[in-house]
Parts: sequence; structure tokens; C-alpha cells
Amino acid sequence: MLKDAEGRESGTLGAGGVLRLVRDGSATTRNELAEQSGLSRSTLADRVQSLLALELLQEISGVASTGGRPPATLTFNRGAGVVLVADLDTTQCRVAVSNLAASPLAERAFAIDITQPPETVLAKIHATFKELLRSTGTGPDRIRAIGIGVPAPVAFSRGEPIDARMMPGWDGFSIPGWFADHYEAPVLVDSHVNLMGLGEQWSHWRDVDHLLFVTVGQSIECGIISHGLVHRGAHGAAGDIGHIRLAGHDHVACRCGNNGCLEAVVGGEALAATLSAGGLSAGSAGDVVALARAGEPRAVQAIRGAGRAVGEVLAECINFFNPGAIIIGGDLSETPQQVLAGVREAVIGRSLPMATRDLRMGCTRLGTRAGMIGAAVMVIEHVLAPENVDRAVQRHAL
Amino acid sequence: MLKDAEGRESGTLGAGGVLRLVRDGSATTRNELAEQSGLSRSTLADRVQSLLALELLQEISGVASTGGRPPATLTFNRGAGVVLVADLDTTQCRVAVSNLAASPLAERAFAIDITQPPETVLAKIHATFKELLRSTGTGPDRIRAIGIGVPAPVAFSRGEPIDARMMPGWDGFSIPGWFADHYEAPVLVDSHVNLMGLGEQWSHWRDVDHLLFVTVGQSIECGIISHGLVHRGAHGAAGDIGHIRLAGHDHVACRCGNNGCLEAVVGGEALAATLSAGGLSAGSAGDVVALARAGEPRAVQAIRGAGRAVGEVLAECINFFNPGAIIIGGDLSETPQQVLAGVREAVIGRSLPMATRDLRMGCTRLGTRAGMIGAAVMVIEHVLAPENVDRAVQRHAL
Repeated sequence: MLKDAEGRESGTLGAGGVLRLVRDGSATTRNELAEQSGLSRSTLADRVQSLLALELLQEISGVASTGGRPPATLTFNRGAGVVLVADLDTTQCRVAVSNLAASPLAERAFAIDITQPPETVLAKIHATFKELLRSTGTGPDRIRAIGIGVPAPVAFSRGEPIDARMMPGWDGFSIPGWFADHYEAPVLVDSHVNLMGLGEQWSHWRDVDHLLFVTVGQSIECGIISHGLVHRGAHGAAGDIGHIRLAGHDHVACRCGNNGCLEAVVGGEALAATLSAGGLSAGSAGDVVALARAGEPRAVQAIRGAGRAVGEVLAECINFFNPGAIIIGGDLSETPQQVLAGVREAVIGRSLPMATRDLRMGCTRLGTRAGMIGAAVMVIEHVLAPENVDRAVQRHAL
Repeated sequence: MLKDAEGRESGTLGAGGVLRLVRDGSATTRNELAEQSGLSRSTLADRVQSLLALELLQEISGVASTGGRPPATLTFNRGAGVVLVADLDTTQCRVAVSNLAASPLAERAFAIDITQPPETVLAKIHATFKELLRSTGTGPDRIRAIGIGVPAPVAFSRGEPIDARMMPGWDGFSIPGWFADHYEAPVLVDSHVNLMGLGEQWSHWRDVDHLLFVTVGQSIECGIISHGLVHRGAHGAAGDIGHIRLAGHDHVACRCGNNGCLEAVVGGEALAATLSAGGLSAGSAGDVVALARAGEPRAVQAIRGAGRAVGEVLAECINFFNPGAIIIGGDLSETPQQVLAGVREAVIGRSLPMATRDLRMGCTRLGTRAGMIGAAVMVIEHVLAPENVDRAVQRHAL
């Protein structure tokens, strides 16, 4: 192996890279780390020492056994700080203090009205953060990052909602800027549906690199994961499948100005309107689901039909994107059999066999918590990215 | 700054990382490299020495001037070996010996018949490689990698065409396995359309992270770039937009077994058939283009109509994917005004304003050479990936 001027091998891994080997399960002892990283003993010892000093690694001594002393085990310390996360839908919000493994230590859900000004809504979230920090006995010095999800496209690099049609005052509002008055930690913002997709993939579909997470409820949207990363597109507008045209429905006007959009045909409002016209009492996707669960056959049919319509559009997305899995979330995922039957029927009938051969399909397992978990994953992966860990090591040593 | 056991800073960049700083223009002198990399002088000197030994870097001494001796300039050596590339369409093949900047030193185009067995076609390519190596005076020890494009989806990790409908014998055939009998260099294989997209993005659209490259000709396909990487999907089947359904054409049967597929309606065969039925002589997309260029109004109309139909499907892909640019290639891109007018008309009329606000659109600038350039880019980026450069440094030093 080549040694450089100081007698060290070239191309070495930093502390962040070493942490990654532990986090992803590649190595749990110093021996395994040395083997996996190619680092010399002394360099590795140094990297591990830095990570222990930052509390990102923990060392558990080997327990004496008959056959001699086993090596100490190194594990990632999920308790090395917390992240604060809030996931906002249009009427609901979920807030949590989470450890660094995206497991909430405390969480709370409450009603919000997203048409209120951002300062009003964010102040409520800030107050809830404070309560949850207090209830978990967490000091402000433990906060590593803040992650926020909003029901709108987001200019990710700026943390600003864009084209937030039903959210007056939010368009171009800097969410990181607002939090900067109260916290020192970095603030990342993404759309609700992207975070749901990320949360679900991280929790239950880690072996799937290319995944679509589709919400079917009041609105119909899609979170896209490509190469394990959220694909936001050029302007954060990717995944807007609710405004793809559904063949044969050109007479249905959509609020976006076009005709025949998927959401205008089978979004929550449209489903509720159809059932209301038939004499049933329904004002939202949630009402339709409640009717279906109570056994109302017209509601069951409506949900299955919505699944079929979504499946028709998804069939095209599948031909284009060739995902490994499609996960359905949103209100209609609460009647999983009905909605999945419809989606499958349309997808199988319309997609190319190669694109559906091993396609996995299911409903969300995280349910309404998916976006909150995804917000935690987003900021944890940011904080623990090797280059950011390396920077933290350097700051700590200054 | 933290020093480790040997007195060196943590989290250091390897030789591959240093090379990247030079290649992407971040640094051209040792001073700039030290600043950008954060490496100590002695470590950096060592990294640079390794890269000079591998000939991947070149050093140009400063020229004495009145104000003292300027620092030596470090540049990437595009001549540090060659890559062999071949891009196969169904009837044409382009083969090149390229330097490490994807500039061919010698290239050749010739007719092939992709329905012949892979051994027959690949033997022709191998013979052409040998000729081109001879004509450029390149020894076999200079070959760093081989890149092949084929007109079919590819299982990228294995280098095998899949679902190669019109290519008997190619389905599941290991192209790297065939070349392994003749060359020691690594062999990467991808689909023709993916490589065209990659070549075009690398050559003319480097500032665009998310790009669609659409071929409009005998077949209609799409190469997808997400986060600057080729998005191949779960099984290499991504981008198969020719089989997305075009609204209002359910009566048109497609060879895939479905009805109303885009390619069945406006692919080369369909366009030629329409013109033939009108008494014109056309058998392929190329014939239609030739007629249009000769001023035949029905051919011009057909091309504009094809652009519109492609645009209708692209409008949906845009809502889904939010690309920063769409590039049209294939036969019909030889009448760029006509095809683009049609595409634009449909896209602007149908996509959401936010997704098209800054959307750039154009026809291929590399033309029929795009896939060959893309094949070179694919293998150059593989050979020069930091981890592979680090490995080469270590091998070289053994």
C-alpha cells in the first residue's frame, strides 16, 4: 500500500466515513472497521476517538467468556442529540422530538389551518417544540437540526414554499429564516408528500432504490425517490400527478385551469360530490372512507374506481420511471383492499410487462406519521452526512 | 484543526478527490488545491505526486515574468489512456477511440444489422477497435475501459440487454463476458437512448441536473437524467414513453399488445404508412424527414403532428418529473423547427405553469454522435470516480 509523506496510506476515509460503516452495519468492532476502511490502526483509532468525543459512537466492552475476552463493540449512539420535526398537512400537524434514529421521543398531533399566515402556524409549532423539549428533559444544546414538511412544493435550497396556491403568505416565505430567530440549528424544508415517501422508504423499503409514494385523498400527489434520493425536479414541482390528464374526462374542469385532471375526476372533493348527488352525506375523502368502512357499497365502488383512475395515470408513470415499489398513502389508504384492487387492475392492464414484473405495491405502513418520520430522516441524513460529521470533528477540536 | 495520531488532520481527501478538484476547475495550482481540499502541504504534495505518477495530472511550470515566478499550473491529462466505445442503433453503429475528455481521437460509422447474433456484431466492433487503435498508434496497455450502447433496455449491473424484442440472441447475453476474452479493461453497457441523454447533458447541458432526452423516429424513447445521473429504474426499463397511451387513439393497435401507444400512432412506421396511403413514397421516419426537407407539406404536417403527440405525453412526464430541459433527438430532430413547434404547443398547453416556467427545450446538438459521446462519458466517469482513482493509486504503489 502506498504511504504518503507522513507514512500514511492515500485515499483515506474521514471520521464521517467511519461512522457510516458503523451505521449501515458494515462493521461493529475495530477489527472490522480496519478491514472495511483500509485505514491503518493508528488512524482508525484517531477517527474512532473523535466520534466517541462527539458521542456519535458508543463503545461497549467485551464481556469475559471462557474463550478469552471478546472485542469491544462499537455502536452508533442514537441519543447523541435530537432533531425537531414538524409535518404540516392542510388541516393537521404532527410535531416530534426525535432521536438520531428517527424514533420520536415525544410527539404531538393537533389541528392547524394552513390558510393562516406562516408566522401564526410556525409560532404554534415553536411552542410545541418547547413543550416537547421540556417534557423529554432535552436542553437546547442537544438540538442538531430542524425539519419541516409543508403541503406545497418547496424551493429546497432556500426552504421556501412555492406556488402555494391555497396558502396565502407562505409563497416564498423563508421558513429557515423564521426559525433562525429562535434556534441555531440548521433548518431543512420539503414538501409533505416527499417526506412521506422518504419516511416510508427509510422505514420499510430500504432495499428499493426507486420508489413512488402516492397520496390519494383530497389531493393526489406523488413523492419520488430515485437512487435513494428525493427527486424534487428542477423547481421542486416533481410529482404533481394530480394534474395529469385522465383519458375520457375532458368535460371535467379542474381548478388548475385545465380539463380532465386526475384530481378533478377522483380527488376527495369529486368523490364526495358524486356520493352527495346520490343522496349520501359526504364532504371530503375522509367521509367517503368512513362510509365505505361502514359498508356503504356506493362508497366502496367510488374508492375502487378512484384506485383504477389513479392506476391509469400510474401506469404511465411506471412506463416512464420503472419504480421498484409503489406505496399508496392518503385518506383512501385507510381502505387498502379497495384502493389497491383498483390501482393494480389498471396498472397491470396498462403497463409494460417488464416494468411490472417485480413491481411491489402496498399501502403506507406509517400512515399519518410518515411525513413526520420522513422529516426526521431528512435532517438526520443531513447532520450525519460524512462531510458534515468531518466538519463537526474539526469544529470540536478547535 | 484536529490532528490525528500521526499529526495529520482528520477527514482528508484522497488522490481521487484531488483529481476531481482539478477536473471540475475548482483549483489549478497547489495553493488553490490546498485551500479547496483542506489538506496539509505534505499530504497534498503526496496526492499530487501519485496523480503525476499515474499521468492523470500534468504540471506546467510557471513562466518567469517581471513580478517573480508564477506558480506551476496543474491540469488534468486527457491523454492518460483511452477508452474504446461503440454505440449501436438497430441499423447503424458508431465506434471510437476516445481520450479521457470524451473527444474521439478516431471514429468510424458503419451499417450493422442488430438482428444478427451478438457474437457477429461484437466481432465487427472488436475488429474496428483494433483498426482504430492501430491508426492512432495506441497500445493495448493504454485502454482504460470499454463502453457499449445497445438499442434495448439493459440490466446495467450485468451489462446484459433485457427484453430485447427485435434482437434474437441478445436477451441476457453478457456483453462484458464477450469482451473479457479480448481485453482486460472493465466493460460497461447501457441503452442507446440513455447514452444519448448522457452525452448531450455532459456536452451542452452541464448546469441542468434533471433532463429528458427524447428520441422521435422509428421508435420513441426517453433517456432520463436525475441528479446528474442516468435514471435506469428498477430493471433498466425506465423511459419507455413510446408505450404511454395517447388519448383518443384507442383504436390503434400497438405491437406491444396494448392500444393507443404513442409509438403506434406517430412512430416512424405509422408516419410513413400515413404518407404512403396518401400516395407518397415513404417507408421510414428518415423518408418522412427527407420529404419534409424537400418541401412536401403533408410530410411537414405529419412531423408537426408527431411533435404535438409526443408533447402531449411529455406534458405528463413534465408534471411528474419537472425536468430543467428537454432535448429532442432521433430522425425527426433533423427538422427541428417542425418537431419543436409541435412539442412546445402541446407541452405549454398542458403542463402546469410552474413546471414549464424555466423549462428549456431544444434539439440534439450532437446528433447521431450523442450516444457514442455518452458511452465515453459513462466509462470515463467510472474510471475517474474518486474511489477508483484511489484504488489505482494503491495498485500502482504495490
